[in-house]
Amino acid sequence: MTGFPHRHLLGIEPLEPSDIQTLLDTADRLKEILDRPIKKVPALRGKTVINLFYEASTRTRSSFEIAERVLSADSLSIAAATSSVTKGETLLDTAKNLEAMNPDMVIMRHSSSGAPHFLARHCRFSVVNAGDGAHEHPTQALLDALTLRQRKGRLKGLKVAIVGDILHSRVARSNLWLLSKMGAQVVLCGPPTLVPPGIEALAPVTSRIDEAVEGADAIMMLRLQMERMSGGFFPTTREYHVRFGLTEERVKRAKKDVLVLHPGPMNRGVEIASEVADGPYSVILDQVTNGVAVRMAVLYLLLGGSPEAAS
Amino acid sequence: MTGFPHRHLLGIEPLEPSDIQTLLDTADRLKEILDRPIKKVPALRGKTVINLFYEASTRTRSSFEIAERVLSADSLSIAAATSSVTKGETLLDTAKNLEAMNPDMVIMRHSSSGAPHFLARHCRFSVVNAGDGAHEHPTQALLDALTLRQRKGRLKGLKVAIVGDILHSRVARSNLWLLSKMGAQVVLCGPPTLVPPGIEALAPVTSRIDEAVEGADAIMMLRLQMERMSGGFFPTTREYHVRFGLTEERVKRAKKDVLVLHPGPMNRGVEIASEVADGPYSVILDQVTNGVAVRMAVLYLLLGGSPEAAS
Amino acid sequence: MTGFPHRHLLGIEPLEPSDIQTLLDTADRLKEILDRPIKKVPALRGKTVINLFYEASTRTRSSFEIAERVLSADSLSIAAATSSVTKGETLLDTAKNLEAMNPDMVIMRHSSSGAPHFLARHCRFSVVNAGDGAHEHPTQALLDALTLRQRKGRLKGLKVAIVGDILHSRVARSNLWLLSKMGAQVVLCGPPTLVPPGIEALAPVTSRIDEAVEGADAIMMLRLQMERMSGGFFPTTREYHVRFGLTEERVKRAKKDVLVLHPGPMNRGVEIASEVADGPYSVILDQVTNGVAVRMAVLYLLLGGSPEAAS
Repeated sequence: MTGFPHRHLLGIEPLEPSDIQTLLDTADRLKEILDRPIKKVPALRGKTVINLFYEASTRTRSSFEIAERVLSADSLSIAAATSSVTKGETLLDTAKNLEAMNPDMVIMRHSSSGAPHFLARHCRFSVVNAGDGAHEHPTQALLDALTLRQRKGRLKGLKVAIVGDILHSRVARSNLWLLSKMGAQVVLCGPPTLVPPGIEALAPVTSRIDEAVEGADAIMMLRLQMERMSGGFFPTTREYHVRFGLTEERVKRAKKDVLVLHPGPMNRGVEIASEVADGPYSVILDQVTNGVAVRMAVLYLLLGGSPEAAS
Repeated sequence: MTGFPHRHLLGIEPLEPSDIQTLLDTADRLKEILDRPIKKVPALRGKTVINLFYEASTRTRSSFEIAERVLSADSLSIAAATSSVTKGETLLDTAKNLEAMNPDMVIMRHSSSGAPHFLARHCRFSVVNAGDGAHEHPTQALLDALTLRQRKGRLKGLKVAIVGDILHSRVARSNLWLLSKMGAQVVLCGPPTLVPPGIEALAPVTSRIDEAVEGADAIMMLRLQMERMSGGFFPTTREYHVRFGLTEERVKRAKKDVLVLHPGPMNRGVEIASEVADGPYSVILDQVTNGVAVRMAVLYLLLGGSPEAAS
Repeated sequence: MTGFPHRHLLGIEPLEPSDIQTLLDTADRLKEILDRPIKKVPALRGKTVINLFYEASTRTRSSFEIAERVLSADSLSIAAATSSVTKGETLLDTAKNLEAMNPDMVIMRHSSSGAPHFLARHCRFSVVNAGDGAHEHPTQALLDALTLRQRKGRLKGLKVAIVGDILHSRVARSNLWLLSKMGAQVVLCGPPTLVPPGIEALAPVTSRIDEAVEGADAIMMLRLQMERMSGGFFPTTREYHVRFGLTEERVKRAKKDVLVLHPGPMNRGVEIASEVADGPYSVILDQVTNGVAVRMAVLYLLLGGSPEAAS
């Protein structure tokens, strides 16, 4: 009956492997609720969750909102990007104001790395990082891991290639932490301009995708942020596809039972060929379903549910 | 105990008269819930409904949202127009992503004709068309029919004039289908530039409103989309009013107990004179109330409720 | 078992002192629910509340939405500023359309003074004014009063200074009414260009803040609307701070146990020094918590709850 040992989910980096395992086990158990004719359990009845999104994100926000409804939480969504939430007030004042309304949890997306940590440090509600700058996106890494574990039965020992804009990707960073902690082997691959210096201390880096996917159990493609194009990071999307796009031929270099992942939304024909996105090894839509399950687990465990009682 | 024979409501065209009757009968029965002090029944508890609106529509969206809450569905609204829902991804990818979150139903408004049909073809959730381009707006036609039937006791044999911008109007198109199927006689009237060629095969067409409303049991005025003005479809709103506006004098040409309908929002003094909008024959606000009832019936029947058990 | 004698809350001006007392007493009783592990009571189950905001207001809207969820009302939020709610239709048509959807209550914020009164006059639902132009913001005054009463045990006889842009402030106006009705003494203070002519008939006015706060039990600072800067009402924010900003030194002129209030969001370093905002006499965050409680009381009483039965 021991509870989950964290009140916040700010990133994967501070988690123990046992925490990750508890989160994934709980997600696996809760996922079954989504297949019921009545997708609703009273687990979080009377708990108030605020979705505070400083960056637009329909996909992640919808996933959290569905998780909240299935667990019967009361929720409130603030699209801070388009709202008057700040009117020039400091982030601390916004946080303290939210705190004064007595929510149990705030799900936060913010363009600045560390913004959710700031909230967690100053407020008594639980904070979930739904993506902070280029730092972490822990629920994405958890849903990726859940997808891998469901298909492969384990994470330990898997060879995983992460390909694309490593520099700006919180998805890459959270996955790198998670996979390393769980004993998987990660290879990073991207244009040299889009790989952060020093990261080779954490995982081998290559700028040749053929090398990265060689013998891989899983390939995680990252979304190409089109807005980077103007930054001069690489010449054209066509050239990007030629050098870093995942094609069927390249998939053949991986293991026979390789899995292909993508956090979405995809740029078909840029970072991933359509045949690959829709191929038999693609688990891209499993990731989405697992996203709801993982977010249910996060809400449930952080708000005091016992891992054993889940579902 | 036989259920409703459709999983989607994509338009009026594919419906049988008996389907329309079931929908209207169910709406009539469910409407009573809206007058209760506690407007809530558990019919759709644990069902997830996503309102996916690619075009702004406060009125239709609010009507659906109220219907969802009254029936205790869990709902989620995505204002795709202003959101990051696509970020350049294909409609199919968006659809498959939504599907992966396991919703029971998606209510979709889209500027392209056929977008909801596309969703229905590719996904396993129920789809309701909340307006697709200039194609159909089936719940509008159903609420109009419910309003007529409540007041006239029948649809068969009614003479109904539909007046305005027929060319761009999904409301006109859905009503034309519904009324024809149910045995009413429709007359279409609009400026020749705003009447689609070939439509005279489906109903008589005139460009003289006095002729159209002559002896009518009901007059359905269409909203003038002001943005059409720039298209050169007609010279000025003043001239439009003179030639096609519904005035008290023109109403007098219809039957004594004529009903005047408008889908809203109205341009008073353009397509409809204020005295008419507020006149004793106006059932414009009945339409709004019936809109909630019709949407309750659609949600209830498509999600598996039995017609007999409604309310 | 006598109910609250009003169906609407349009302003503080039309209320009797006994009404204000009932509202505050009910808020005090309901506030306890916010500290429960399960913050949810079925008081307003099956009641439909529409939040109709013609001006952006995350703070007030969130506060109302939390109150609605805690009381189990079904609610719907329309951000009229960014929506198609009107499309050129009259406010009356919008109101009648909402009415036709059978909501029990509409919470309205509008930039025009009197807009909520117009709604109340023409529709059968209850109306709560969530701020109308420069006219009234009654729930703000009630939450301010609740905060004062909790700390001071009474309102009668308190000396309260209201400082800032009196001219454009609905907060000042509602507070002036409430405090006067409850027997507090109000002093108004602001730049002569930002004090409405004739208001000295209601309360003494000074343009010297040191004079205003002298011996005060409470100081209510108003937010400086930065957009007024361009109106030439005063030269710079720096000069505003020097002449009207609340500093620690100025607070010392008030009573030892003075309370400092601000409706938020604060411009730190402009109307209020940071040390004051965070000082021991600051009750700014109590105001926010009390805001939820006051809104719960308003919803509960207007929708027919009995004052004695609250909680």
